Amino acid sequence: MRRVRLDLNISLDGFATTTDQTPENPFGEDWMRLTRDYTATRTFRERVLHDSSGAGTTGVDDRYAMRYFADLGAEIMGAGMFGLHEHGDDPEWRGWWGEEPPFRIPVFVLTHTPRASIEMANGTSFHFLDASPHDALARARAVAGGGDIRIGGGATTARDFLDEGLVDDIHVAVVPILLGRGIRLWDDLRGLENGYRVTSEAAESGVTHITFSRPPE
Amino acid sequence: MRRVRLDLNISLDGFATTTDQTPENPFGEDWMRLTRDYTATRTFRERVLHDSSGAGTTGVDDRYAMRYFADLGAEIMGAGMFGLHEHGDDPEWRGWWGEEPPFRIPVFVLTHTPRASIEMANGTSFHFLDASPHDALARARAVAGGGDIRIGGGATTARDFLDEGLVDDIHVAVVPILLGRGIRLWDDLRGLENGYRVTSEAAESGVTHITFSRPPE
Repeated sequence: MRRVRLDLNISLDGFATTTDQTPENPFGEDWMRLTRDYTATRTFRERVLHDSSGAGTTGVDDRYAMRYFADLGAEIMGAGMFGLHEHGDDPEWRGWWGEEPPFRIPVFVLTHTPRASIEMANGTSFHFLDASPHDALARARAVAGGGDIRIGGGATTARDFLDEGLVDDIHVAVVPILLGRGIRLWDDLRGLENGYRVTSEAAESGVTHITFSRPPE
Repeated sequence: MRRVRLDLNISLDGFATTTDQTPENPFGEDWMRLTRDYTATRTFRERVLHDSSGAGTTGVDDRYAMRYFADLGAEIMGAGMFGLHEHGDDPEWRGWWGEEPPFRIPVFVLTHTPRASIEMANGTSFHFLDASPHDALARARAVAGGGDIRIGGGATTARDFLDEGLVDDIHVAVVPILLGRGIRLWDDLRGLENGYRVTSEAAESGVTHITFSRPPE
C-alpha cells in the first residue's frame, strides 16, 4: 500500500515552522531548539550530516527518525523548506543539503516561480511545480514506484494537504518547549482526528510522538 | 514544600477552555471530548461523581487524576470555571458540583463582582475575590496549611498565573484531538519551559501527560 505521509516537529504551543531566520543564523535559534532531539539522533547524523561514526541517540526519537526516511518514493515540500524565501533570487541555489541531500528520491518543490529541475548524484532530484496539492500528488505518484510519498513541510504546505484530506499517516513529534512565534500547524483543522487511529509514545528526551493513521481502504 | 500547581486538559491544538456551551448542553460537546479520558478514570468517578462501585480506568490517566486531588490546601479558579459567566445573575448559584463538591478545601473564585462566601458540608468553601494573581495567592496561602495550592483554570486564569511566574508545577494532559475553537493556554508564553524540569508520559488512552516542575529553592 503506497501511503501519503507527513512528519513534523512541533512545539507544545503548535508551531511547526520557525520564522526567526537571519542571514547570520540561517536556520534560526527556534529551529535549532525545535529540532534538537531529532538532529541528535544517530539516523539524522548518518543520513543528513554524513556522520558514519555511529554517534547520536538510539532511543525512541531515533526509531521515528528511521521511519521518517524509510520506504519513500517521492517527496513534496514547500518553497520555504527548499530555501526559496531566502534564496529565490539565486538561480544557482540547490537547497540546504549540499551535494548529497538525504532524500535520494525525486523531490517536488511547490513554488509560484518554477525553475529548471536539478539532478544530484545520489538519486535526489528537485522539480519545481506551480500546482495544487492534488496535482502535485499526482505528479509524485507517477514517479514514486512502490514507495510512499512524504509531505516534507513546512507548516503551510502541510496544512494545505491536511485540509484537503490527502494525508494517510501523520506523525508529529511534540517538543515540550513554547516558541510563541512561527507558523502553526493545526489552525482550522477541527476534527482532523476523525477517521484516523491514534497512537502516542513518550521518548527519553521528553518529546512525545503522536501518530494518526488512516486504516487501509 | 508547599507548591503552586496547575493541571489542565488541552487539545493537541492548544485549547484548554471550551466555548461551545449552550443552555441545552451546559458543558458543551467540546468539553466532553476534551475531558473524555479524564472523566473515565476511577478517581474522577469516585471523587466527582460519587461512584463508589470501583468503575473507571486505572491506568496512567488515573494516576495523574489521583495526583490532581492529592495534598491540596486551597484552590483558585476563574469566574468561568465556577459558572459565573452563565449563572452570574443567579444569587443562589453554588457551582457545577452539587452539595458535595470534589474540592473539600477553600476555593477562591476570581471575579470582578464578588458575592458572599458559600460553605458546603464536606469542607469545601467558595470565596469570591476581585484580586490580582499575586494577591489571590497570598489569600490562598493563608488558609492552605501545609497543602499545595492548585490553580484550577480555565485557560485565561491559568495564563495569568503562568505569565507572572507563579506556578511551580504544571501538568497538561494533551488530548490527541483538534478542537479548532476555544481559549488557548499557551499564547504569549515563549520560553516558559526555562527553569523547569520536563517529563512526558503516554497513557493507554493516547493522551500524553507533560509536566514542568520547578526545582525546590
